[in-house]
Amino acid sequence: MKVLITAGGTSEPIDRVRSITNHASGTLGIEIAKVFLQNGVMIDYVVTKSAKKPAADEHLKMHLVNSTQEVYDCLKQLSTTQKYSAVIHTMAISDFTTQASLSIEDLTTALNQAYKAKDQLKEEDLLALFSSMANPTASKISSKTKGLVLSLQPTPKIIQSIKHWQHTTVLFGFKLLANVTQENLLQVARTSLEKNQADFVIANDLSEIDTQQHHAYLLDSTGKVIAQGYQKSEIAQMIFKQWQQIYQQKEE
Amino acid sequence: MKVLITAGGTSEPIDRVRSITNHASGTLGIEIAKVFLQNGVMIDYVVTKSAKKPAADEHLKMHLVNSTQEVYDCLKQLSTTQKYSAVIHTMAISDFTTQASLSIEDLTTALNQAYKAKDQLKEEDLLALFSSMANPTASKISSKTKGLVLSLQPTPKIIQSIKHWQHTTVLFGFKLLANVTQENLLQVARTSLEKNQADFVIANDLSEIDTQQHHAYLLDSTGKVIAQGYQKSEIAQMIFKQWQQIYQQKEE
Repeated sequence: MKVLITAGGTSEPIDRVRSITNHASGTLGIEIAKVFLQNGVMIDYVVTKSAKKPAADEHLKMHLVNSTQEVYDCLKQLSTTQKYSAVIHTMAISDFTTQASLSIEDLTTALNQAYKAKDQLKEEDLLALFSSMANPTASKISSKTKGLVLSLQPTPKIIQSIKHWQHTTVLFGFKLLANVTQENLLQVARTSLEKNQADFVIANDLSEIDTQQHHAYLLDSTGKVIAQGYQKSEIAQMIFKQWQQIYQQKEE
Repeated sequence: MKVLITAGGTSEPIDRVRSITNHASGTLGIEIAKVFLQNGVMIDYVVTKSAKKPAADEHLKMHLVNSTQEVYDCLKQLSTTQKYSAVIHTMAISDFTTQASLSIEDLTTALNQAYKAKDQLKEEDLLALFSSMANPTASKISSKTKGLVLSLQPTPKIIQSIKHWQHTTVLFGFKLLANVTQENLLQVARTSLEKNQADFVIANDLSEIDTQQHHAYLLDSTGKVIAQGYQKSEIAQMIFKQWQQIYQQKEE
């Protein structure tokens, strides 16, 4: 039996020296890997370059990625060639990728031109304008401009592809919000369950995470909270326990 | 005798889970620290949280920073209370910080309103519009928008303050460009020497830097190339040699 674990946070390049980074230390992924390794489960571990890495282990194969596109390519390749009893997707993936980086000077010129032709722009017009100014991020943006404007476009939701690639896997999704009510957090987590065809979702709020603690709710596919953890190691145990119950039942 | 070394790359928050990061492993700073420590020099080491750290040493004091503002505060505090024989400023500092993060929907509305009042906007108008929409980066931006626009404003040039705080220090600046001609690189480095009142500048091009090699030119205050290095350890030696020559002369 094998599981796929993703960990860390992606980096979307703005230019060759800067990027938009999603913070994620990778520590929770390491804790989860530990529990599965202790129980003799093989792991494919997809992790971003900036995250902490688990210790070398002959039963763990590490795959290094950086941008959202690299994550997509790696997960697609693995999921369509390997069989995983579970996919545990802790990675913080950027919702946006850089489309264009424009100086305030260039943007002003382009907008004035657009408004010469039309009295009002629609969102689509503005998106098209940014798209037409999309620039390759090959070099370093000059620091001389009075202001810089970045337009970002949504990235594909990778988690929504996992069940397409692996119909029978058990998918553990994660939902991280910041400073919301418990009710709001659980509601958003429930929506994500359905959208992502996840079997479980771990919901957590950034305000309840630090080096000492990590509070998280585990929801099953019906949206019910079936467990809570207050430490990363507890969350890892919680996930492993669900996995074990499913595969013990199957074996019986 | 004491030197101040800065290393790593800054992170400017976009919201609570994302930031704009300047890539810099911190490896060159570590090499430079090694050479000075081997020669009995005390070090204040200002390093970003994501960068590699030098090994613990009783003669090295580490100061952790993250954003450009934190770097400014830390360097100001140190430079106005300590005396440094040299400041070696390898840190990659963000030229821009996030001012506003706007959904394409909100930006379209604001622009339509601005162009109702005026036929043409100036750069200043657009800057003012972004400034009026500046939002605190307390929470996590929703991933639901069709597009996200970040407006970034220039950060203060910290290196230009160093000689104001420490009139008599020997300042080593760094200039990193990407994919430019040698002539262009040296020209930009020379301009930075004067602007920053630096005594030396190390000029390097990203295309000549990888884990195996690091090509850099050392320019003195007249803009003359006085040495070249092809490895991080060579660059560290190059810097130490100049420092040594200056302080040996003073002692004689």
